[in-house]
Amino acid sequence: MGGDEAPAEIVRGAKRAARELGLPILLVGQPDRIAACDPGSLEVLACSEVITMHDDPGSSVRRKKDSSLVRAAEAVRDGRASAMISAGNTGATMASALLRMGRIKGIARPAIATPIPSPGSTPTVLLDAGANAECQASWLVQFAQMGSVFATTRYGIDEPRVGLLSIGEEETKGTPLVKEAHAMLSDVKGINFIGNVEGRDLMTDAVDVVVTDGFTGNVALKTLEGGLYCLQSAMLGAMTATDDLKRDFAKVWPALEPVIDGLHPDNNGGAMLLGVNGVCIISHGSSSERAIFSALRIAQEMVDHDLVARLAAVVRHEGD
Amino acid sequence: MGGDEAPAEIVRGAKRAARELGLPILLVGQPDRIAACDPGSLEVLACSEVITMHDDPGSSVRRKKDSSLVRAAEAVRDGRASAMISAGNTGATMASALLRMGRIKGIARPAIATPIPSPGSTPTVLLDAGANAECQASWLVQFAQMGSVFATTRYGIDEPRVGLLSIGEEETKGTPLVKEAHAMLSDVKGINFIGNVEGRDLMTDAVDVVVTDGFTGNVALKTLEGGLYCLQSAMLGAMTATDDLKRDFAKVWPALEPVIDGLHPDNNGGAMLLGVNGVCIISHGSSSERAIFSALRIAQEMVDHDLVARLAAVVRHEGD
Repeated sequence: MGGDEAPAEIVRGAKRAARELGLPILLVGQPDRIAACDPGSLEVLACSEVITMHDDPGSSVRRKKDSSLVRAAEAVRDGRASAMISAGNTGATMASALLRMGRIKGIARPAIATPIPSPGSTPTVLLDAGANAECQASWLVQFAQMGSVFATTRYGIDEPRVGLLSIGEEETKGTPLVKEAHAMLSDVKGINFIGNVEGRDLMTDAVDVVVTDGFTGNVALKTLEGGLYCLQSAMLGAMTATDDLKRDFAKVWPALEPVIDGLHPDNNGGAMLLGVNGVCIISHGSSSERAIFSALRIAQEMVDHDLVARLAAVVRHEGD
Repeated sequence: MGGDEAPAEIVRGAKRAARELGLPILLVGQPDRIAACDPGSLEVLACSEVITMHDDPGSSVRRKKDSSLVRAAEAVRDGRASAMISAGNTGATMASALLRMGRIKGIARPAIATPIPSPGSTPTVLLDAGANAECQASWLVQFAQMGSVFATTRYGIDEPRVGLLSIGEEETKGTPLVKEAHAMLSDVKGINFIGNVEGRDLMTDAVDVVVTDGFTGNVALKTLEGGLYCLQSAMLGAMTATDDLKRDFAKVWPALEPVIDGLHPDNNGGAMLLGVNGVCIISHGSSSERAIFSALRIAQEMVDHDLVARLAAVVRHEGD
């Protein structure tokens, strides 16, 4: 029920995943609104309430017990579903997953891991991209561990390089949180910590996992999304401003389209809430059929590769 | 002496400003290295030392008393120059300006104000872009006041709209610092505070001045610079990948060039260190002749429009 184009695009993406990937899908939401989108033979878990983008995350999850978000998280908890995907209220998605699935034992705080496109190489995993506005240094260490497991599981990266987001490469740069996290990350075993990185490294092949607090991560993510959108619009607009230009532009477009496409959030499979006891994907609010299809494909992959057990193993190992 | 292309590009930009704008220029640096760049009739203030990009800002300013940065700041303090411009070590430029020129009375901390290009409208002024990694809420209020004066003086914006960088529009979003600053900014007179803004608003016409702490601001700035560079490179690379494409691309390039050019940091005149008792421009390390020329032009404008006195007046007024 969540997202700008819900439930129509959600149902369309789900049907495509059922058809092309053979995935068994459970649509969670209001039956009449889902029926209006022609869900075909997809199974529906009926619920009466919807948490909107304007609802307060914490209180709405407690109040709207029969909402699609809460019911979806319960379906994962109860083993009726293997993963949940939502394009709705991010805060409420996190709260539902956290309250109903619970945390992986030993994880202090779940974090949102968002893949940042890096032209010509695997995406950079940024976390926390917004789950925790304020963080402790020890949480950032767990984000590094979880991000490493995710980068390996999702992108097949061996010993992913982990960077700490700061305002200079020197370990003396940054806030007290960053300096403390730098010291702790330098000491911890089992991750490949390469030191501080800067915002300009996010879209490059210089680093595989970038760790930061949820405030800085969310600002960086939205700054990047906004900036890429503005530049792309300005460039495409200039190259198609007249009919003559449009004709010439049509000849270069086939070469350009894959680049634009590769950077589109619809293709990254969504952000992953790491640290809850189940696979939970947070899709962009603007998710189209294609975004939902990608998210379902990634959800299947993460379930098949046992992401949650891998995450649990890393933290369990730490306590030894 | 500072910057990747110093002193050659610096001297070239200065000569152009002298020629085209009739500006009296004082080159500060090592005479032999300046002479090798053919400074023509430009006046040279000789000094023996250079603070490099690798020097620690604080200690190098205290230790290298005959460095070009320290001498340039002294020239402004002593009235021998009206403004200083550096493409060198940012931290050392700030430290020199702060220690030699001093702060404007009533200003708690100077801040770096960086113009962010906004296609189709005036740039957005982002501050603090890196002077203070940790901030107090009251400093952010002064950044809002200084940023407003700067947006009016530099871009002629009447009652510039001031936004507070956060991770959601609601005043309940963000860190304790952001929430406290939100409350203070809502109360202060004389600025046009429009509430929280997000990273995606930076390159748009939604806001004129964006206030944040120097850590978040610097991360946002570098993330944006890196992202724009990556996207632009990827798009231009794809459209010129073969000789056939190059031929077609040549036809759209004249329409595209002004857009790319308008976003280039070389044309924004550099960042302004607001709050010190003199005009101080921090140019990008990669500054070319054109960047130095733009910075000199802006320096002249800010001196002519009495930026420092205007900044002082706003803070003095506050104490009434």
